[in-house]
Amino acid sequence: MTPQLEDLFAFLRFPSISTDSQHRGDVRACAHWLIEKLRSMGLDTELHETPGHPIVTARNTHQADKKTLMIYGHYDVQPVDPVELWDTDPFEPVIKEGRIWGRGSTDNKGQMLAHVLGVEETLQDHGELPVNLILLFEGEEEIGSPNLVPFLEKHKEALACDVIAVSDTGMVAKGVPTMGYGLRGITCCEVTVHGPSGDLHSGVYGGAVANPATAVARLVASLHDADGRIAIDGFYDDVRPLEQWERDMWAKVPGVSDEDTLAITGSPETFGEPGYSSSERLWARPTAEVNGIGGGYQGEGSKTVIPAKAMAKFSFRLVPDQEPADIMRKVKAHLLKHCPKGVTVDVEIGHDGKPFFADPHSENGKAGQAALKEAFGVDPVLIREGGSIPIIQDMKEILGVESLMLGLALPDCQIHAPNENYWIENFEAGIRLNKALMRELASS
Amino acid sequence: MTPQLEDLFAFLRFPSISTDSQHRGDVRACAHWLIEKLRSMGLDTELHETPGHPIVTARNTHQADKKTLMIYGHYDVQPVDPVELWDTDPFEPVIKEGRIWGRGSTDNKGQMLAHVLGVEETLQDHGELPVNLILLFEGEEEIGSPNLVPFLEKHKEALACDVIAVSDTGMVAKGVPTMGYGLRGITCCEVTVHGPSGDLHSGVYGGAVANPATAVARLVASLHDADGRIAIDGFYDDVRPLEQWERDMWAKVPGVSDEDTLAITGSPETFGEPGYSSSERLWARPTAEVNGIGGGYQGEGSKTVIPAKAMAKFSFRLVPDQEPADIMRKVKAHLLKHCPKGVTVDVEIGHDGKPFFADPHSENGKAGQAALKEAFGVDPVLIREGGSIPIIQDMKEILGVESLMLGLALPDCQIHAPNENYWIENFEAGIRLNKALMRELASS
Repeated sequence: MTPQLEDLFAFLRFPSISTDSQHRGDVRACAHWLIEKLRSMGLDTELHETPGHPIVTARNTHQADKKTLMIYGHYDVQPVDPVELWDTDPFEPVIKEGRIWGRGSTDNKGQMLAHVLGVEETLQDHGELPVNLILLFEGEEEIGSPNLVPFLEKHKEALACDVIAVSDTGMVAKGVPTMGYGLRGITCCEVTVHGPSGDLHSGVYGGAVANPATAVARLVASLHDADGRIAIDGFYDDVRPLEQWERDMWAKVPGVSDEDTLAITGSPETFGEPGYSSSERLWARPTAEVNGIGGGYQGEGSKTVIPAKAMAKFSFRLVPDQEPADIMRKVKAHLLKHCPKGVTVDVEIGHDGKPFFADPHSENGKAGQAALKEAFGVDPVLIREGGSIPIIQDMKEILGVESLMLGLALPDCQIHAPNENYWIENFEAGIRLNKALMRELASS
Repeated sequence: MTPQLEDLFAFLRFPSISTDSQHRGDVRACAHWLIEKLRSMGLDTELHETPGHPIVTARNTHQADKKTLMIYGHYDVQPVDPVELWDTDPFEPVIKEGRIWGRGSTDNKGQMLAHVLGVEETLQDHGELPVNLILLFEGEEEIGSPNLVPFLEKHKEALACDVIAVSDTGMVAKGVPTMGYGLRGITCCEVTVHGPSGDLHSGVYGGAVANPATAVARLVASLHDADGRIAIDGFYDDVRPLEQWERDMWAKVPGVSDEDTLAITGSPETFGEPGYSSSERLWARPTAEVNGIGGGYQGEGSKTVIPAKAMAKFSFRLVPDQEPADIMRKVKAHLLKHCPKGVTVDVEIGHDGKPFFADPHSENGKAGQAALKEAFGVDPVLIREGGSIPIIQDMKEILGVESLMLGLALPDCQIHAPNENYWIENFEAGIRLNKALMRELASS
């Protein structure tokens, strides 16, 4: 195993699950490992405390005549359940069939470390970097980056830069370098439906009181019409229509047809908002998804209860020009209006993030595309992304610069799911990409 | 503590959860304890092996000139989750405020043991019983008695009797003895909705494939209209309308008004089929209940997944003259017909049992009412029950005799739920009831 893979394996072994308070110490230990790695490369490093998990920064010695590049990434990861569906230990990475398997291998440790190692190679080869570099790595991306915006605002001058590079998005297919120029936003909430004060025998009381599990299901069902269009009043009001040039371009992008979506997801058929292709549904249309639903007895066998309560976790993916706070107001009004009889409903509002959109044909955008071509040897495609990195839009608003989204994830990388994996060839391409990007920006 | 309470506590300490295969040994140990208790009273006892949990029988020496009374009960119990909502250990009974707290204290160990101890007192006082007695205790009532019907059929001659007494139902209020003459039946199924082959990132794939959690919710929502009437084609076809004498009688029964239902359940309001009171909804109208629903991430924080599958456990309470198999055919047809686009649905059919109805004014019925009056000192009320004891109807069909339902449970006994409890005064009344019943039957 190469020293670069050894570094990645060490990084992946930290179970840095930011959403789970039991892993608080693991997240911190992971940040400290990162600090040590960056320090060993000769960078000035700093661990910044926050009310949550620490932020790690590093920089070279800046020179006035060089462009400043910021590289953003995150060292926290998603939870691993259902853990029984993993073929290998999520936090003991293994190499099989050309890929590295483990939680965070793609999202985002594997991608962010490729940049770090590109910087390391450049320093080893040349003793210095062609750009002023700022590395910014947070430990709370998977919980909505609650402490990064205050950090950016506080350190706005020190973080001043010309462009930001982020590898936390996807390639449309293996060997097809991909630059993203748009992201969906997100807003989340959790609904709890309360009925009887305790679980009831469904024979003794069934029929005379409302069942919270039925009620929460009716609420979920109220979110869409039968064709998959979202049925919340005003939900689509601010959606920016797709431009024809995007529809034409995306129709030619490999790996994102309806057939590809079926093959990748294993779903029995595609399904979504009428009038749009899979790529259009994913990249330019908003969603209302149930990420979790639960109530009553879910174990082996049967238990004839009416549960005292039931819950559902919702997330809504947003597109330009939807505003998360506006959408959540509409969602909450919908949920309260559609609350079935005989129960009460609580809505707990969660994290959010704005959608992002940038012109892919700017000077920095062209440098990003050139770097992708150098790293992969072929022309990149231009897409939007279905996922959300709210901080991209926040950085645009606070620091006044746009981000190049140079993703290294593949559709079958299983991010957020069991058996997350990362192609070794993409890890190596990511190292080349970082080196090329610094050169291209320096010469542009 | 009296020796009778000591017996009950020993009986309750067995975690005889029949639905959970991990407790198989506990169920068997509980059966053996029962055998020993009955043997110590001088009865002929037998432990009958079945493909599932054992059946325990006991009898005195029968005499041709005596009536034969069978007493049926069950020594298995429901699961205990959510265990964190119990104030005390479910399997370490305690006495507080006049009640015994623990799983099975009411359903059914506390009630069946009262009969056993009534027999013991009669034998101690008189050396013999006024009736031929057959005790029949099973360990699979909570999972639908799958092996009792074959047992009854095989031992039909040995189990021949004149009447059956069962204390596995409720009293309408404290101090109001209650004889039941009807029971709801039941039929159950579990639905699994399958979508993508694995959990998906809801940003990357949300919008282009169906979400099984949304789909299962839409299926659940399809079962009722907004007013609470069941929307399955033909579901009400065979429902026997309530007779006016029942409606008039039930309107006068204490403890079952809408206000009582609210107070007992703690629900924010009553809710159910339009046109019926709470007691009518509970005792004479069928239901469609979700006993459990689950899919996706239910832990702390958020996890933005589209789950690969989601499930719901359903039970349907049936009334005369609905047939479980006919209803399940209609349910399954409904679920398949309403399966949302983009997913597949599996329906696993579970246990069932027919509803029961008997004339409360028969000779044996009158003996039951007289025994209740002796045990409690006041006239009993006549009701139907919302719960299901399918074996009551099975025994009627196989053995040709009817059951007296002489319940000792109270509405706040929390059967099937956390903090199940049993009033000591009902335990003592149950012992008196058994003795009076044997006398009344002998003299009737």
